[in-house]
Amino acid sequence: MNVSSGFHARQLAVVGLGLMGGSMALALRGYADHIVGVELNEPARRYALEQGIVDEATDDLRAGVKDADVVVLAAPVRVILSIVRGRIGTYLRSNTFLIDIGSTKEDICMAMGVLPIGIQAVGGHPMTGKEVSGIDASDALLYRKRPFVLCPTRRTTPAARLRALAFVEALGAEVIEMDAHRHDRTVAAISHLPYLLSAALVATVKSEGDKDDAVWQLAAGGFRDTSRLAASDLSMMGDILSTNTQAVAALLARFRAQLALLEAALIDEDGEEITDLLRPVRQARIDWSSKYERKR
Amino acid sequence: MNVSSGFHARQLAVVGLGLMGGSMALALRGYADHIVGVELNEPARRYALEQGIVDEATDDLRAGVKDADVVVLAAPVRVILSIVRGRIGTYLRSNTFLIDIGSTKEDICMAMGVLPIGIQAVGGHPMTGKEVSGIDASDALLYRKRPFVLCPTRRTTPAARLRALAFVEALGAEVIEMDAHRHDRTVAAISHLPYLLSAALVATVKSEGDKDDAVWQLAAGGFRDTSRLAASDLSMMGDILSTNTQAVAALLARFRAQLALLEAALIDEDGEEITDLLRPVRQARIDWSSKYERKR
Repeated sequence: MNVSSGFHARQLAVVGLGLMGGSMALALRGYADHIVGVELNEPARRYALEQGIVDEATDDLRAGVKDADVVVLAAPVRVILSIVRGRIGTYLRSNTFLIDIGSTKEDICMAMGVLPIGIQAVGGHPMTGKEVSGIDASDALLYRKRPFVLCPTRRTTPAARLRALAFVEALGAEVIEMDAHRHDRTVAAISHLPYLLSAALVATVKSEGDKDDAVWQLAAGGFRDTSRLAASDLSMMGDILSTNTQAVAALLARFRAQLALLEAALIDEDGEEITDLLRPVRQARIDWSSKYERKR
Repeated sequence: MNVSSGFHARQLAVVGLGLMGGSMALALRGYADHIVGVELNEPARRYALEQGIVDEATDDLRAGVKDADVVVLAAPVRVILSIVRGRIGTYLRSNTFLIDIGSTKEDICMAMGVLPIGIQAVGGHPMTGKEVSGIDASDALLYRKRPFVLCPTRRTTPAARLRALAFVEALGAEVIEMDAHRHDRTVAAISHLPYLLSAALVATVKSEGDKDDAVWQLAAGGFRDTSRLAASDLSMMGDILSTNTQAVAALLARFRAQLALLEAALIDEDGEEITDLLRPVRQARIDWSSKYERKR
């Protein structure tokens, strides 16, 4: 056990052995006496056991979490929601610390808020990932020096909050606390909106490329970067969008207004107006890059 | 002189000594007996001379091009247009081969088409670049294995076309021939539309980030990629957009239609429809990546 952080788990249960859950187990190895993985997929369970990522693996949620004092839900948003809304409240011991890592937080935190009193539940969202998925891509350093958002629920006691802070510190991540509504609005702007733009761009280019293959052939770095998110996992993105519809729709409306301003100046052939619109935008992107962009 | 290509210049004039022009001079060093650079910026001229990128440098267009048998216009689109529409037709010897590397082609090719008969003029657009600009970033391999579009003009005789093909071969680039209208429509889809989306995205995120700095703080890889083009050079993009307004407006209309389909499915909370829309888009992006994406 690492003594530099206040975090310790006698028995840690990680529900979902994919990239995120596997990396979580690896990162917390020094902070947990025993790690149990809960996963329906048999090859993932076997891999996690063979590689020593977990000490024990099961496909039975109840068996996996009933003796845990720390439970991490590392599954897609809809799966987390069905677990929290389901029977997990009756499986957990009182005083168990429960955290999830779902990409949207309002629905999940609301569901956590009606768990039995005594369960210490906090919503979490680590801003990290990889181009590849699956437990075989697990990386003990995946969370290190990356933002990790914590959102309080009605079951976040002061003690639960301190455990959550220690948990994030143990991962080596950088904590940011905010309420779930503000979180969902924020990620709608920086993540879900970019995904939809990327998808609609590829749909547009595809309608051109279907008529003229040179479109695909000439596409280079600008298209590559702007369209990359369109290749994201569909079921993951479906869960995310469907649990954040209102914020995404609000950001789409704001985006359309911004795009319309640019288009109007373009059609007016008003070069000065276009430049006046684009200058602060360019500067904002440059400022973000120098202040916050994490270089790979 | 390299004998593997049919291209040879007795005197090559490169008009514009930036990244593109400097790289062009370096790449054609073995194919030209004498290279003259034309550039208004004195430090760029000095650098080009000191580094042996050119043999001679001048700020006088007439002096630079009057004895050339090959002239490359490597300037921003509006500068190329004003040169072609200006007096260069009277400066050039008959039979001189003239090519440009501007990012939009219809206006430039139209202007080239009314140059004096005898000038062998072809429109060009190399699909290459770097994050940095300026002659000090010049790279002899910048054009190698990258697409180089050639667009015929009314001054593209069969002999001019053969010279253009040999020119592209000498650069080590991959030639794609198409008419200027099709070129401009294509780059509107894969380059100018992505730029506008990127800029409108940053404008949207900025309006959120101005209220809540956590927006900038949490922005990660998805935002980074989708917003990268928003940091592009403003005067370059202004030239490009203002010489391709019609195609860009057409692509914007198609983009809005695609985005509206996604949004309608989202608001309807019709997960199946969203997935049905996104699946072929995701596949198209993956197919493009495996077939055409050039890895750095």
